[in-house]
Amino acid sequence: MLNEAQLIGIEDETGDLTALAGGGVTSACGFLASGISAGIKVGRSDMAMILSERPCVCAGLFTSNKVAAAPVRYDRPLAERGCCRGAVVNVGCANACTGEGGYADACEMGKLAAEAAGVPVEEMLVCSTGTIGRRLPMGRIREGIKLAAAALSRDGGKDAAAAILTTDTVTKQAAVKVRAGGVSVTVGGMCKGSGMICPNLATTLCFITTDALVDREDLKAAAAAAAEKSFNRITVDGDQSTNDTFLVFANGAAGGERLSPGHPDWPVFVRALSAVAGSLSRQIVMDGEGATKFVSVTVEKAASADDALAACRAVANSPLFKAACFGGDPNWGRVISAVGNSGCRVNEADTQIWFDDVCVFDRGRVADEQANKRLAQVMARRAFSVRVALNAGDFEDTVYTSDLSYGYVKINGEYTT
Amino acid sequence: MLNEAQLIGIEDETGDLTALAGGGVTSACGFLASGISAGIKVGRSDMAMILSERPCVCAGLFTSNKVAAAPVRYDRPLAERGCCRGAVVNVGCANACTGEGGYADACEMGKLAAEAAGVPVEEMLVCSTGTIGRRLPMGRIREGIKLAAAALSRDGGKDAAAAILTTDTVTKQAAVKVRAGGVSVTVGGMCKGSGMICPNLATTLCFITTDALVDREDLKAAAAAAAEKSFNRITVDGDQSTNDTFLVFANGAAGGERLSPGHPDWPVFVRALSAVAGSLSRQIVMDGEGATKFVSVTVEKAASADDALAACRAVANSPLFKAACFGGDPNWGRVISAVGNSGCRVNEADTQIWFDDVCVFDRGRVADEQANKRLAQVMARRAFSVRVALNAGDFEDTVYTSDLSYGYVKINGEYTT
Repeated sequence: MLNEAQLIGIEDETGDLTALAGGGVTSACGFLASGISAGIKVGRSDMAMILSERPCVCAGLFTSNKVAAAPVRYDRPLAERGCCRGAVVNVGCANACTGEGGYADACEMGKLAAEAAGVPVEEMLVCSTGTIGRRLPMGRIREGIKLAAAALSRDGGKDAAAAILTTDTVTKQAAVKVRAGGVSVTVGGMCKGSGMICPNLATTLCFITTDALVDREDLKAAAAAAAEKSFNRITVDGDQSTNDTFLVFANGAAGGERLSPGHPDWPVFVRALSAVAGSLSRQIVMDGEGATKFVSVTVEKAASADDALAACRAVANSPLFKAACFGGDPNWGRVISAVGNSGCRVNEADTQIWFDDVCVFDRGRVADEQANKRLAQVMARRAFSVRVALNAGDFEDTVYTSDLSYGYVKINGEYTT
Repeated sequence: MLNEAQLIGIEDETGDLTALAGGGVTSACGFLASGISAGIKVGRSDMAMILSERPCVCAGLFTSNKVAAAPVRYDRPLAERGCCRGAVVNVGCANACTGEGGYADACEMGKLAAEAAGVPVEEMLVCSTGTIGRRLPMGRIREGIKLAAAALSRDGGKDAAAAILTTDTVTKQAAVKVRAGGVSVTVGGMCKGSGMICPNLATTLCFITTDALVDREDLKAAAAAAAEKSFNRITVDGDQSTNDTFLVFANGAAGGERLSPGHPDWPVFVRALSAVAGSLSRQIVMDGEGATKFVSVTVEKAASADDALAACRAVANSPLFKAACFGGDPNWGRVISAVGNSGCRVNEADTQIWFDDVCVFDRGRVADEQANKRLAQVMARRAFSVRVALNAGDFEDTVYTSDLSYGYVKINGEYTT
């Protein structure tokens, strides 16, 4: 049994990483950030900026939703070019489904932010999150950009992390230090996301910075690998948003050798990036809309990697399973029913299911009354694991999910009103 | 705007059908049914039986969940043979994931029911619904079969409809009369289902009887066509159960000519069957677990039939959209976001969205404040339609869904305890 801090903290199987408590996007050398109130939301900060003090490479992964928001369409070619130094972010309005006018707003936002930060326009990215189908309040955005640029500072990571939240209840940051390329390299990040969370790319904005020296193509590969096992392995409600964005910036400010797949320290750098992405993604599940539980769903001994992932996702997205988790209802039949729905190769006579250390189904034999009692105890925990062994092959995967509570319904029944 | 009775009632575009108020599985000539208390559930009936007084053909469609319950595995070859006269049904236990012992229980249940009804063992089907992973209480089942057979009567349809309910709050029956093959032919049915409702084959047990004279292969084709546009077009929570079963019995007791695809009256017979299946399936959505709304989701002018259906299902299964429906939150952006996630060909600059008669998004132009107010009024209705025009082709489909409410969470957080 892991406690909450362990579940959402840095995973470090090798002992190479040093977690930096309270660290975030300004932990790495040469990165500035800010979070300010532009008046889009009442009584809270609502715009953030991140900027590298020096030239920088970047990698971006974006929503696969075919209805992509204007900022996503604006950012894609810039991130593909790979030389961005920073990003400006607003909450309260997603600038999605806003037509050509909305796209022009995103362009103006990027241009003004680049000017205010003193960088070329192609080096500044734009992110928006909030309600779909409304135009940005450009008057407030313009003023906010000036305030955000003026407030940029070396310890602004925490302010930025607070300013990007929507229905989130807590800020989400993580950072690690690692020895690589002859120097100490830092990787830190922040994210937001609470509902509309589903692979691929959990519905979220995520910003990671590092002072490692990395070429942009190599950074892209490392970012994709890190996202695949973190943000692509979580779900809150199975809905993917129009605005999902995952950005990694690397500015080389730590000095040291250039890290690349041929360098002996490349794996430890990727591990550091993955650890930060993993922690951030699990923080999103822990803070899922209305969530009262954190559940890891592992499918092992599957006939293929696709089977393992499909079965994980079917369980992790099942409203019936998630409602049972909320109520602590020891109704494990919903796990095997969801696995059966996933399309994976499954034979109930070969299948085993555990909740933490309690075996509830063993190759066609169901749990007795005592096991059901112990199951209810497991499900009363804040966090627990579900493990399904299909005994059909050698493939394994894990997806993290939250429960489905009254809180989720309340939050999403009242969001815009 | 349709009222509730119209929404769940018989759809009859041609005027050929006569709805039979209060009709069900014993409306057609020569069918008996019963519903009795076997003591599986406290204070309510919990077993039902249906039987044709004379030889009969049947067609069966079953869950595509790879973890199929024992009764489904028992029934499949018998239904394939196509000469079954009846079925015995229990609630309170799904007899799923119960291994070889559970399969033996299903066999015994079928054998005892056939003996009690006085028909060959291969002419009696078995259905179970309830919790997964528990063995049937065979003592009570054995006694219940005797009681159910003894109680069979020509007006037992209503008792049977009540005995098969689980979390349903109302019985679900429908029946029509139609002129076909020179005589008056009746089609009637009943079903249960409230949660774990998703295509293909909404999670449900459905029994339809007719006194038409039809060959078994033709009946199979007609049953498949009727199910495709009814039970395969509804969703409550996107989860498909281990026990879904859709059975149609035809005994020819009305006399008249043999109906087949070559007969001029075949279309009207299929229409009658589809009307009963459609009404029953919509009654399930209207009584969805915790449901307070009935929402029809239509996608039109799609580039392909697959696109239209995928987009319908993405919207109808989106927890965010469903929670917004519960709260009456005029957050139409969740519709287009779900469409974008569905994989269908969509361009927001071509797309239009209506809620009933209110256009909220018109080819990139979003609704103004007045339209948003009218949208909130539409969403306050017990039932409303969402219509998405992709303007990318000529294909259309419709899926019916309910909202996601506190009630759903409550029901499914406490189901087994």
